Amino acid sequence: MLHVLTDREWSRGRDMLSVATAALDGGATIIQLRDKTASTRVLIEEGLALRALTRERGALLIVNGRVDVALAIEADGVHVGQDDMPAALARRLLGPHRILGVSAATMEEAEVAVAGGADYLGVGPIFPTRGKADAGPATGVQLLTELARRYATPLVKVCLASLAPR
Amino acid sequence: MLHVLTDREWSRGRDMLSVATAALDGGATIIQLRDKTASTRVLIEEGLALRALTRERGALLIVNGRVDVALAIEADGVHVGQDDMPAALARRLLGPHRILGVSAATMEEAEVAVAGGADYLGVGPIFPTRGKADAGPATGVQLLTELARRYATPLVKVCLASLAPR
Repeated sequence: MLHVLTDREWSRGRDMLSVATAALDGGATIIQLRDKTASTRVLIEEGLALRALTRERGALLIVNGRVDVALAIEADGVHVGQDDMPAALARRLLGPHRILGVSAATMEEAEVAVAGGADYLGVGPIFPTRGKADAGPATGVQLLTELARRYATPLVKVCLASLAPR
Repeated sequence: MLHVLTDREWSRGRDMLSVATAALDGGATIIQLRDKTASTRVLIEEGLALRALTRERGALLIVNGRVDVALAIEADGVHVGQDDMPAALARRLLGPHRILGVSAATMEEAEVAVAGGADYLGVGPIFPTRGKADAGPATGVQLLTELARRYATPLVKVCLASLAPR
């Protein structure tokens, strides 16, 4: 499963649909819409275009941070960080069937997220990264090991990190 | 009916609850939560505190711009601008009973908003204002006159403007 984030800051001027199409051509099965600088109006326009594309290609569409945008464009789910809506509130608005992902950097954040109804956790960065300005310090592999021990259910681990240690 | 907007930029360091309490003491019947710099997490914390206060005081609570925050804190409604979610989508997420306000600066924007399910329009600024950086140019009284002629149903006109012409 390859989960690709679209992000204006990373796209070097290419439009979001071209980036997403290239990702799908390359094997992505989940596209995450992430645009922290766009207005809600623009985010919805981008989201509706991505929704049509991902439906056509049989891929999932996840919206970063915005539960209202996810509902408005009928996305498959939402990914929230620790500065976004708490997991339990997001789950209540999304209903039981949409996917809820939560970023967690500590065991406590992971426990709150799972108790609140998270379907998967975004854990990381595992190794130091320069690709995501707000990623925070690398948490190392220890948290992943602890999570795997704690939770019997499979948790998809999205590792926002460079692929090799610095 | 006195509709007061809380806004970090206008509050000169006083916390939002103090500002809202003073507004309610002064006769406000609607409080609008507006904080474009806060994270969603902080906005929800502020919103839950304002929800408790407005319930206690019998006032309405409207959230500016964010349909998800309004649903999460069980606000009475949402006010959206032209860069926020389109009125028709907001109405679909809010259901039939919550209040939907829409900012409109032209007759075309007003028509789209009313067709999309707006309960009231924010029209203005009627006169030039320096109180709201993103308010746009003053539309004058002409639009108000046209709207009053067009729509038989009463539309509350929220005039984000200084009270006197420059």
